[in-house]
Amino acid sequence: MDESSVTLREVMLRDGLQNIPEFISTDVKIELFRLIAASGIRNMEITSFVNPKAVPQFQDAARMAQAVLQMKPEGVEVSALVPNLKGAQNALESGMRNLGFVMSVSESHNINNVRRTTAESIDELKKILDLKENYPDLNIRVGMATVFGCPFEGKIKPRVTLNFIRRFYDLGLRDISLADTVGFGNPKEVKETCALCLTEFPDVTFSIHLHNTRGLGLANSLAAYETGIRLHDGAIGGLGGCPFAPGAKGNTSTEDLIFMFEEMDVKTGVNLEELMETSRYFKMVKNNVCYSSSILEVGVPVPQGAITKDGSEQKWSI
Amino acid sequence: MDESSVTLREVMLRDGLQNIPEFISTDVKIELFRLIAASGIRNMEITSFVNPKAVPQFQDAARMAQAVLQMKPEGVEVSALVPNLKGAQNALESGMRNLGFVMSVSESHNINNVRRTTAESIDELKKILDLKENYPDLNIRVGMATVFGCPFEGKIKPRVTLNFIRRFYDLGLRDISLADTVGFGNPKEVKETCALCLTEFPDVTFSIHLHNTRGLGLANSLAAYETGIRLHDGAIGGLGGCPFAPGAKGNTSTEDLIFMFEEMDVKTGVNLEELMETSRYFKMVKNNVCYSSSILEVGVPVPQGAITKDGSEQKWSI
Repeated sequence: MDESSVTLREVMLRDGLQNIPEFISTDVKIELFRLIAASGIRNMEITSFVNPKAVPQFQDAARMAQAVLQMKPEGVEVSALVPNLKGAQNALESGMRNLGFVMSVSESHNINNVRRTTAESIDELKKILDLKENYPDLNIRVGMATVFGCPFEGKIKPRVTLNFIRRFYDLGLRDISLADTVGFGNPKEVKETCALCLTEFPDVTFSIHLHNTRGLGLANSLAAYETGIRLHDGAIGGLGGCPFAPGAKGNTSTEDLIFMFEEMDVKTGVNLEELMETSRYFKMVKNNVCYSSSILEVGVPVPQGAITKDGSEQKWSI
Repeated sequence: MDESSVTLREVMLRDGLQNIPEFISTDVKIELFRLIAASGIRNMEITSFVNPKAVPQFQDAARMAQAVLQMKPEGVEVSALVPNLKGAQNALESGMRNLGFVMSVSESHNINNVRRTTAESIDELKKILDLKENYPDLNIRVGMATVFGCPFEGKIKPRVTLNFIRRFYDLGLRDISLADTVGFGNPKEVKETCALCLTEFPDVTFSIHLHNTRGLGLANSLAAYETGIRLHDGAIGGLGGCPFAPGAKGNTSTEDLIFMFEEMDVKTGVNLEELMETSRYFKMVKNNVCYSSSILEVGVPVPQGAITKDGSEQKWSI
C-alpha cells in the first residue's frame, strides 16, 4: 500500500441490508462476507447492534459477529455499528472490538435517528468509552451522520462538524467517518470539509461514507480522495437505497469506486471481477433488491482492442 | 458570467439523436431546440451534415439549420457537425457558420468513423478552411475524437493529442473540443490531458465532450472543470447510448452536469427544472429511447427541510 492507494470499506452487510424488510438469512450473510473478503476487500462493516424491533434485519447481529470472528479472516478489519451503550455491550460480548458509534451533527436528525440529542449521544459515547476498562482493545470509530446535509436542517456548516470532532478528539478518539447520510453533498463541499478536517486534525484517520442519492457519489469520492482521504465506504450493487423505490440509489457502489480508482492507477487491492461475481450472486439470491452500479450494468469494462477481437464491433462516432 | 461559471453545450439534437434509428420529425427537433434554448442553454449543436444514407436521422440537416437560424435565438451559439468538405459546403449553404469538424486522434477509429486516415482528414480540414475566402465569418471547431481512449487502440498518449492540436493551431484554429468518444476516460487522465492542453495553448478555447459509458461522466467533468475547462458538452436524458441496449449510457446527462455544478455554486445560467421538463417531454414523444440521468430518475432535488414540510417523511440513518 503506497500513499496514493485507497482502502474500500464494504458496508453492504450493514448499510446495504438495513433497508431491506425481508430477513436475509445469516448463512447468506456469512457467505457474502466470505466472498467479499476473498475478492480482496480488507475492511468491512458486518452488522449493526441495534434493537431488533427497530431493524429486524439485524436480529442475528451476535450470531453474525461470532461466525465472522470464528473465520478469523486474515488481514480483514471487521467492525459493527452500535447506536448506544446497550449495543456496544452486546457487540463486545459477541467478540467484536471495532465498533462504529453513530451520531448526527444535526440535532433534529440525531433525535429522529437515535432518539437522543447530540449532547445525550456524547454522554452515551463516554459511557461506551468507559468500557475500555474491561476491554482495553476496544476501538471506537465515530460515524458522523449528516455532515454534508440533513433532510430536516439542510446544509450543515463545516464548523459544526469540526466542533464535534474537537470534542471526540478530546475524548481520545482518532477514527472518524464523515457521512453524507442522505446524499446531499457536492464535490466542492466535500473538498472544503475534508480539507479542514485533515488540516486541523492531522493525526486522526478520516474515512468517508457517501450516498449516491443524486448521482454525485463518485464525483464526491473523487473530491475526498483529492484532499487526502484514503478510506472510502461503499456497498456492492450500490445497495442501501429505499427498497420500495425502484432505481433509488443507495450507498456509492463499491464496484464503481474500485473501477474509478483502478482506472486512475490508484490501487485498491480488490479483484473487481470477483467482487462483481459476488454482487451478481446476491442479486440472484435477492432479486427484488434495487441495484445501482454503473459498472455492474455495463458489464466488464471493455479491454483494449476487445471490441474488434471478439467480433462484437460497434460503430461509434464522436 | 464570472470566471468560475460554466457553459453547457447541449448536443442531444446531434449526438443524442444520431443512434436513434427511427426518424424524429423536424418539427419535434425544432420544438426541442426552442424549449432547450428557453431553459437558458446558450450553446447547442443542432444537427450533423453527414451523408443521409449513413445517418438517415440527419436527412433534415438543411431544413433544421434554416428553421433554427430563422428563429434567430438571441445569445444562443448554434453549431452543426460536419465530417467532410461536402458537409461543410451544405452547412454553409444552409446558413450555418459555426461548424464542428470531427477527427479521431487514433488512426483506426478515424478510418472506421469517417473512412479516412488522419492525414486525409487534415487535408479535408484545410479544404474546408479555404471556404473562408467566400465565408469570412466561418468558424471551425475541431472535435477531437477518442482523446481519452479508442475502442480499437486503447489508451491514447496525451502527446498524440497535443501534436494534432499543434497542427490545428498552426492552421489558425482556436476552438478545440476534446472528446471521450466511447467513455474510456478517467479523472486522472482527463486532468492530465486538459492541463497540458491549457498550458501549451493558453489562447485556445477548449471544450470537453464526455460519455458516461462506464459511469465516470460526472467525475470526469469535475476533473476537467478543476483544470479550467469551462465549456462542457451534455445531452438531456443522457441520450446518445446504444438504442438497442437498455440502460446503455450515452453522453453525460446535461441535467446531472447542471445539478452538480449548481450545487457547487458554479453558475450555469440554466433553469434545471425547465430543462428537465423538456427532457420529460421528449421521453413522452419517444418513449423507447434509453434515458440515463440520475437527477431525472430521482426527480426534483429535495430542497432544505422539504421532507418534513410536505409530510413525506422518510427514515434515514447513517
